[in-house]
Amino acid sequence: MAKELTSRSENYSQWYNDLVVKADLAENSAVRGCMVIKPYGYAIWEKMQAELDRMFKETGHVNAYFPLFIPKSFFSKEASHVEGFAKECAVVTHYRLKNDPNGKGVIVDPEAKLEEELIVRPTSETIIWNTYKNWIQSWRDLPILVNQWANVVRWEMRTRLFLRTAEFLWQEGHTAHSTREEAIEEAMKMIGVYSDFAQNFMALPVIVGHKSENERFAGALDTLTIEALMQDGKALQSGTSHFLGQNFAKAFDVQFANKEGKLDYVWATSWGVSTRLMGALIMAHSDDNGLVLPPKLAPFQVVIVPIYKTDDQLDAISEKVNEIVSKLKAKGVSVKYDSSDAKKPGWKFAEYELKGVPVRLAMGPRDLENGTVEVARRDTLTKEVVNIDGIDQYIVDLLDNIQTNIFKKAQDFRNEHITKVETWDEFKDVLVNKGGFISAHWDGTVETEQKIKEETKATIRCIPLDVVDEDGKCIYTGNQSHRRVLFALSY
Amino acid sequence: MAKELTSRSENYSQWYNDLVVKADLAENSAVRGCMVIKPYGYAIWEKMQAELDRMFKETGHVNAYFPLFIPKSFFSKEASHVEGFAKECAVVTHYRLKNDPNGKGVIVDPEAKLEEELIVRPTSETIIWNTYKNWIQSWRDLPILVNQWANVVRWEMRTRLFLRTAEFLWQEGHTAHSTREEAIEEAMKMIGVYSDFAQNFMALPVIVGHKSENERFAGALDTLTIEALMQDGKALQSGTSHFLGQNFAKAFDVQFANKEGKLDYVWATSWGVSTRLMGALIMAHSDDNGLVLPPKLAPFQVVIVPIYKTDDQLDAISEKVNEIVSKLKAKGVSVKYDSSDAKKPGWKFAEYELKGVPVRLAMGPRDLENGTVEVARRDTLTKEVVNIDGIDQYIVDLLDNIQTNIFKKAQDFRNEHITKVETWDEFKDVLVNKGGFISAHWDGTVETEQKIKEETKATIRCIPLDVVDEDGKCIYTGNQSHRRVLFALSY
Repeated sequence: MAKELTSRSENYSQWYNDLVVKADLAENSAVRGCMVIKPYGYAIWEKMQAELDRMFKETGHVNAYFPLFIPKSFFSKEASHVEGFAKECAVVTHYRLKNDPNGKGVIVDPEAKLEEELIVRPTSETIIWNTYKNWIQSWRDLPILVNQWANVVRWEMRTRLFLRTAEFLWQEGHTAHSTREEAIEEAMKMIGVYSDFAQNFMALPVIVGHKSENERFAGALDTLTIEALMQDGKALQSGTSHFLGQNFAKAFDVQFANKEGKLDYVWATSWGVSTRLMGALIMAHSDDNGLVLPPKLAPFQVVIVPIYKTDDQLDAISEKVNEIVSKLKAKGVSVKYDSSDAKKPGWKFAEYELKGVPVRLAMGPRDLENGTVEVARRDTLTKEVVNIDGIDQYIVDLLDNIQTNIFKKAQDFRNEHITKVETWDEFKDVLVNKGGFISAHWDGTVETEQKIKEETKATIRCIPLDVVDEDGKCIYTGNQSHRRVLFALSY
Repeated sequence: MAKELTSRSENYSQWYNDLVVKADLAENSAVRGCMVIKPYGYAIWEKMQAELDRMFKETGHVNAYFPLFIPKSFFSKEASHVEGFAKECAVVTHYRLKNDPNGKGVIVDPEAKLEEELIVRPTSETIIWNTYKNWIQSWRDLPILVNQWANVVRWEMRTRLFLRTAEFLWQEGHTAHSTREEAIEEAMKMIGVYSDFAQNFMALPVIVGHKSENERFAGALDTLTIEALMQDGKALQSGTSHFLGQNFAKAFDVQFANKEGKLDYVWATSWGVSTRLMGALIMAHSDDNGLVLPPKLAPFQVVIVPIYKTDDQLDAISEKVNEIVSKLKAKGVSVKYDSSDAKKPGWKFAEYELKGVPVRLAMGPRDLENGTVEVARRDTLTKEVVNIDGIDQYIVDLLDNIQTNIFKKAQDFRNEHITKVETWDEFKDVLVNKGGFISAHWDGTVETEQKIKEETKATIRCIPLDVVDEDGKCIYTGNQSHRRVLFALSY
């Protein structure tokens, strides 16, 4: 086995990096903080995109495309927005290179300086609301329900493949509404779409809730989030949906005439998920042997490996396998038959295990005689010998079963890692020794949240939508509290 | 009619701009040279993407994603490449903004200057070949057949929506091969895919050929092109496929061990089409009433408009229409039923004509009585009354017919505009008074090509693949020539 991984218990962070690189998902590029998404990783991202795009369209959204660049002055128009993004912007200042008069190579042509610098979009609210200004005159032009698939850049200092990169791929929805209620409903609807996608496709249990004021998106009145738990007990914010109020409409002077003919500012939302979901998917399910993929997002769901000594054996096996392949494809199962003779079966087994293919079939001469095939499932690493008759339906059911099982396993782990605590000592103890979400009372102030973060690095991940009213004392200050919130260490 | 277009005969260029904006395809943004692709335009682009992506995958390609930024030094590594792109690069020099100490707003933080400037990719050969270096050791790692869907930036001074913009969307294939022959075959295969797509989906007849040395991609040994003809008699280069030889492998030191264990440089191709195809699609087929879309790329193929006075009439019509809609959807036809009462039927007719919807159905009370529907086709602007029984199959056949007719119309126009000329006077006369492709003898030298361009602005669009050997005299110099090439004015 050439591609051994660091084990999770030895070094979780190293395990993750090893896995991403060795399973051919992504790698660091020559450009600081920017990654190359390799074909196998990109194929998973494409599956995610396709499902999300379908869900966005089913909820009435259309796609569009806005410029990569944002004039610097646009940034200053919404005060908290610029505050949130100014420190991590890639800035274009020139538009031409020229030959270096003092040597070889090229230099930036000092005469090709832009009058106004352009920012590579870290998010597109400003350029989009500047555009919406021309699209909206009356209530008849509303709502606008637009999504964009794009690359964005945030100049992060410490980067990790998929989880935090200077450039990443994402989608950003930007909607415009005539009423506050409709915008709030939209923000809620879209966090629901994300939650649905995470649970039913990624097999990732998530908690839906509001961010505290401190953790809100720069420019939002409310940020909704889906929070997932990784195997090391850290939370991962996996998608957010923002109610932006009239902040951007005011910053870009976007008004509409309502049904009574009166002018009012437009109400807004924005919402996004990114290639960070890849990080969540990888970390939530995988094990020390490699990736574990939910069947609904696997580039291929089944791999078939022939076991043979002679060419005649291979021919006979291939004939049978091709029948199985046709049947599986007819049932909508994606399947790869790897009959290449460059590698031995053992190598292939390890490779497809590393790559998280949900089901592996192996067929040898004895199987052929007996009319059987060996079926191995990636999630449990168990094997069984199955009759070839009806194998297609067997596999369809097995894939469903695996999808459910992966979700349940992650859900059980997550549920075991939501701990109620009543005191500050308990809080610190659970944080260090158990990890996961800590359900605790908090006095509701930014100051307390900040102090807890400074002392422990834990943040409020969310105030769950389904939180129940309950009187208690803030674990940190002892002040009154009316509900618990969820704290955790996070990515 | 609110949205009148400038007519083509009055001002072709203005007609095009009017059409792009008024049919809601795209508009200029606040960022010089960058466009906003509006939802209706983007929906067409998505259809193009989906078909092309399917074709790429069917020919064995996979998608991946490489960084937006390219270190400046990478550019200098391939001499003709840097020559070709250095003059139109967006350059990132800083990575942070800060509050302006002398006032409001933000300024670029002078302390956040990059050690090495980054270029926003105008094309990705350099960053990709720098990456391939680590992916390729032996012949077993070849071929690499990768495609990327991405945005790129070329700082064009004179821009036009879709045809020439500072930022545009495209796909770029980058393949690596162990032999020269295989790479040449790949470049040829992909120009074939583009030609197939243009003709069978865009209904756009194209001529496939080689570029002359002068018009080659910066860094290529051979550039294949598909050339289309617009209604004003100008050619539009619609897609290119390049045989890059070992140029980039040498520039980035990418060698592989061949089957004999000897090291050799890897052979390369790259190929791309962009949102420029949108410009070709629009200009090739549309008329003074608006867009004409081939059914295979129309966001919706059929629109149904009810004609009614009372709510009861609308209800009865809607019931019948919903039956038709279901039947059409079952046959894979995309259809929109526009029963909104905000606009009158006449307005809707004009609007969907402007937007190029291939087929419009209108149904009024009399149709309901008679069991008929009025069918209008966008390409010929003709109408007929058709029995509702079997309307679904009728529409399916009609859409096929429209697709074929649009292609044939463009092909007839193109064929009428390929003119053989024998003298320089004839050449200039045809160029000015007729336009289109001019098939003429050329002595094969860069100098002659340059002089012809300087005097007439005409360039060699391509040396067609199916050119026949024929002795003759160069129209410009009178020197010997062995084949004709195609000249034209172009976009």
